[in-house]
Amino acid sequence: MKIVRPTLLLDEQRCRANIRRMTTKANRHGLDFRPHFKTHQSHAVGRWFRDEGVTKCTVSSVQMAAYFAEDGWNDITVAFPLNYLEVAEINRLAAKIKLNILVVSAAALHSLLGGLVHKVYCFVEMDCGYHRTGVAVSDSKSMDEILQVIESTPLLEFAGLLTHAGHSYGCRSGIEILTVHQQTTQLMKKAGSRLRAKYPDLILSVGDTPTCSIANDFEGIQEIRPGNFVFYDIMQRGIGSCPEDQIAVAMACPVVATYPDRGEVIVHGGGVHLAKDFLKQEDGSMVFGRVVRMTEEGWELPSTSMTVKSLSQEHGIIRATAAECGSFKPGDVLGILPVHSCMTADVMGQYVTLTGETILMMSKVG
Amino acid sequence: MKIVRPTLLLDEQRCRANIRRMTTKANRHGLDFRPHFKTHQSHAVGRWFRDEGVTKCTVSSVQMAAYFAEDGWNDITVAFPLNYLEVAEINRLAAKIKLNILVVSAAALHSLLGGLVHKVYCFVEMDCGYHRTGVAVSDSKSMDEILQVIESTPLLEFAGLLTHAGHSYGCRSGIEILTVHQQTTQLMKKAGSRLRAKYPDLILSVGDTPTCSIANDFEGIQEIRPGNFVFYDIMQRGIGSCPEDQIAVAMACPVVATYPDRGEVIVHGGGVHLAKDFLKQEDGSMVFGRVVRMTEEGWELPSTSMTVKSLSQEHGIIRATAAECGSFKPGDVLGILPVHSCMTADVMGQYVTLTGETILMMSKVG
Repeated sequence: MKIVRPTLLLDEQRCRANIRRMTTKANRHGLDFRPHFKTHQSHAVGRWFRDEGVTKCTVSSVQMAAYFAEDGWNDITVAFPLNYLEVAEINRLAAKIKLNILVVSAAALHSLLGGLVHKVYCFVEMDCGYHRTGVAVSDSKSMDEILQVIESTPLLEFAGLLTHAGHSYGCRSGIEILTVHQQTTQLMKKAGSRLRAKYPDLILSVGDTPTCSIANDFEGIQEIRPGNFVFYDIMQRGIGSCPEDQIAVAMACPVVATYPDRGEVIVHGGGVHLAKDFLKQEDGSMVFGRVVRMTEEGWELPSTSMTVKSLSQEHGIIRATAAECGSFKPGDVLGILPVHSCMTADVMGQYVTLTGETILMMSKVG
Repeated sequence: MKIVRPTLLLDEQRCRANIRRMTTKANRHGLDFRPHFKTHQSHAVGRWFRDEGVTKCTVSSVQMAAYFAEDGWNDITVAFPLNYLEVAEINRLAAKIKLNILVVSAAALHSLLGGLVHKVYCFVEMDCGYHRTGVAVSDSKSMDEILQVIESTPLLEFAGLLTHAGHSYGCRSGIEILTVHQQTTQLMKKAGSRLRAKYPDLILSVGDTPTCSIANDFEGIQEIRPGNFVFYDIMQRGIGSCPEDQIAVAMACPVVATYPDRGEVIVHGGGVHLAKDFLKQEDGSMVFGRVVRMTEEGWELPSTSMTVKSLSQEHGIIRATAAECGSFKPGDVLGILPVHSCMTADVMGQYVTLTGETILMMSKVG
């Protein structure tokens, strides 16, 4: 394949293997698998999930739910707190598909009621320690208020409790991840046990990529919703979620200059391509990506010791030894494994597979 | 205007005033004005420049040059180091318009020659202290090598020397900015003086937003290329380039939850909307945007003391006092002044003016 400008390469084989591995795991544990599609945001990749028998998905916005509904997904959870200003779009969707919304307060839900004309299913978001959004497990007053609104509204049906253990992203080992997982599932089961008598079909839904990748005890949990695992990235590798050879995307970037004196290679590939998430190193420096060498078939592993030290809008500045600088010249193409593949994919808006096929994402068509 | 989801608002009046102010300044100093269009990436905003008599522009990629050439711009500088892999697109453009390319080494230029079939104009990039790309002013050997390739190639014509004083972004006052400006222009004039006898029409081109906003001494300089000033942002305000009332874009974000106990308001508006540039505060905390209250006509100034403390993919987490939290409820809409408007615009791909008109950008059409 001929690369002439920054191109987000997608290794379909690795990606499909990631999907298959997580689907198999969900099946083995008797879990409903409702993968989060915010990472890939693509009809084509969604169909790879369908090839493995997946029939439900999670998205991060009502717009994204509409995009996947267009491609036949008819059981979708919007795992972002309900914004009742979007009631018109919620109604359009709920008329066609089983739409699950996320509730964090009785007030927001109450505001929806004036405009709602189709049935929606409600997950209540639980805060199990991430402290972003959701009801604290100890806060039974807020929970009861929410359930009261749901109970008194025929167009609302209680589906279950949902949490995102986003604090697992602060982990740096399998042990730490398992600790977060255990705390989270314990809290979810505690919250669920209060309600199970009244709601025997209550779903407990968990699902960040680190815990779903590493954990093997899902007893008492009904559903998982990981998303990033579809591609993984070097942040996940750092957390301990995956080995490097499961990372399914790399940005191919043309070299435009080399500066052996100061140990830098400059590529076309900046913040508008990679996005600006970074890993902080122990010495305080930042890493915006890891460099891999390109091969005929994709990219070579293990990655080099070269890392992206900073990003301008279009420039990537790569830290390299003088010898490494000398091994590249303008016009060569190198690969960069992204720090956070969700954000990289989002800014690029499209992928190119290793066989040269272009795959569009929501942002390029929606 | 009814906001239902994250929407990048563009105050056309402020934006046109920013354009007019910089055009007037360029004219007053007898400078060619070649604004950088990578910030707005929009045909519509480009036309607002044309309304002020601007006829030349700068872009950051060959693709962006093609996008603006489509709308009638016929004198464009690609202010990114030449990537000869794009020779096919360079030829297509050079057949139609006056295309200026940026050269940082003789090697890269030499590689272009095999494929070049139309005349292009060459700026040599000078490194005046930013140390990203370019030829050091002291490095006359590299400069002579480049000029030799240009001289011996009929399809290449030397246009001048170009620099980007990106280190001005580290400034925190007008005085610091003026110091960078003075050093930069001195170095450029020194580099130019070596060549002026042989190339009397040599153009010296400078142009970051901080120095072009603040400086008033452009003696010996022929061209300026600022870009960000079209919108400005809170980073530029922090540098000292602009007052807050010249910032022409704000992200309107629906509130989805408030947590007075921990002093946080959660909005729909995350990394996929604002991008992830941040300002580091003296206490080590990060600011990803400043909150403004929305009004019927746009947004209110001065901004509140509320700031965006972190961003997930779709969530914005805002630091607020309990009283401020209490003044918002789910369904309210607040505004966020972005840290780096170039990156925010790029990820959004479109603007909505205060009169409700949608303006598309390159990424949504290209």
